[in-house]
Amino acid sequence: MAATVTTKRTRRTRSDGERTRRKILETAVRLATVEGLDGLSIGNLAMATEVSKSGLYAHFGSKEELQLETIEVARDLFIDVVVIPALGVEGRGRAIGLCDSFLDYIHRRTLPGGCFFAAVAAEQGARPGPVRTRVAEIQLEWMNLLVESVSKAVEAGELSSDTDVELLAFELNAVVVAANTAFNLHDNPAVIDRARAAVERIVSSLVPS
Amino acid sequence: MAATVTTKRTRRTRSDGERTRRKILETAVRLATVEGLDGLSIGNLAMATEVSKSGLYAHFGSKEELQLETIEVARDLFIDVVVIPALGVEGRGRAIGLCDSFLDYIHRRTLPGGCFFAAVAAEQGARPGPVRTRVAEIQLEWMNLLVESVSKAVEAGELSSDTDVELLAFELNAVVVAANTAFNLHDNPAVIDRARAAVERIVSSLVPS
Repeated sequence: MAATVTTKRTRRTRSDGERTRRKILETAVRLATVEGLDGLSIGNLAMATEVSKSGLYAHFGSKEELQLETIEVARDLFIDVVVIPALGVEGRGRAIGLCDSFLDYIHRRTLPGGCFFAAVAAEQGARPGPVRTRVAEIQLEWMNLLVESVSKAVEAGELSSDTDVELLAFELNAVVVAANTAFNLHDNPAVIDRARAAVERIVSSLVPS
Repeated sequence: MAATVTTKRTRRTRSDGERTRRKILETAVRLATVEGLDGLSIGNLAMATEVSKSGLYAHFGSKEELQLETIEVARDLFIDVVVIPALGVEGRGRAIGLCDSFLDYIHRRTLPGGCFFAAVAAEQGARPGPVRTRVAEIQLEWMNLLVESVSKAVEAGELSSDTDVELLAFELNAVVVAANTAFNLHDNPAVIDRARAAVERIVSSLVPS
């Protein structure tokens, strides 16, 4: 009985701990889009989460551990709001869908500073280390998703057979990331429409006539 | 005579002061591409410039003043290495030339963290204030330069008369900025070639047949 209680208590504690940990990390994702991963100080997070500094230290052994875990939570969010909505179709529809849901993610201000990965790629790009390595891996996952969709579109005859698949994926990513930067910088929703028009124009220029 | 000496000394002092100030700001431009404008602490700059902290305080009244002056020195550099080399021709040649010299600026690692303005636009995008305002103005100057070149190309019949001028400028900027991000993140020179190919493909798709 005593053992059971102990187990229960441990379980409840762990579960509370997990909830707090998740809450901290979700706050960290939002904060990092404005202040960068370097702006994730224990002080900043304590203010934003109302968890004490010592509580935060108990959850994360080092700033790097906090940054790496924040990246994983941001990746989960990206998959939920950008990737999954586009998986209903394949090929050209999926490539366009990925761009569309990315632009929705920006336009709806899902995160206060726009795309998490655009922000941290710019911040960490020139600083080799485990954080940059992980950000680079996730950026490649995203690029590969675009490349795969475009490849399927070519195979299915939805895009011209001489389409440079890597090049088209590069262009589509460039357009949506540029929209993110411009939307943040100028608070101008017209850039979202312009990006949709660019995706449309770029893809159409490769549709077999 | 005494007056002359005093004048001379004052002049020399001012000139030394200007030189030191310029040296500090040039270091700040380089540092900001890696650490961001927020990473420009007096401590970091003192280490990088070997000017004492008190000397640095004497030069810049506030961190914001330092950041704003750093932006102006980065703008001068951008004009020298990206804009001026492209001004020899007009129209389509200039639009392509601006993209080419931007890609050279990245590829040659003119600054350790790639394009200064791409770095600080990502960092400051979600933080309204005088720094973001100035970065946004300079980003628009650059966009306007692309728009003007593309407009001239359309007027001269070098690009199709139904070219959406703003859209094409948006796409060209997107491609070169995406190359900057990917080059920093993956250390892969292939992205520079891919970006040149993208500029070529996008522009060619609008050349009247």
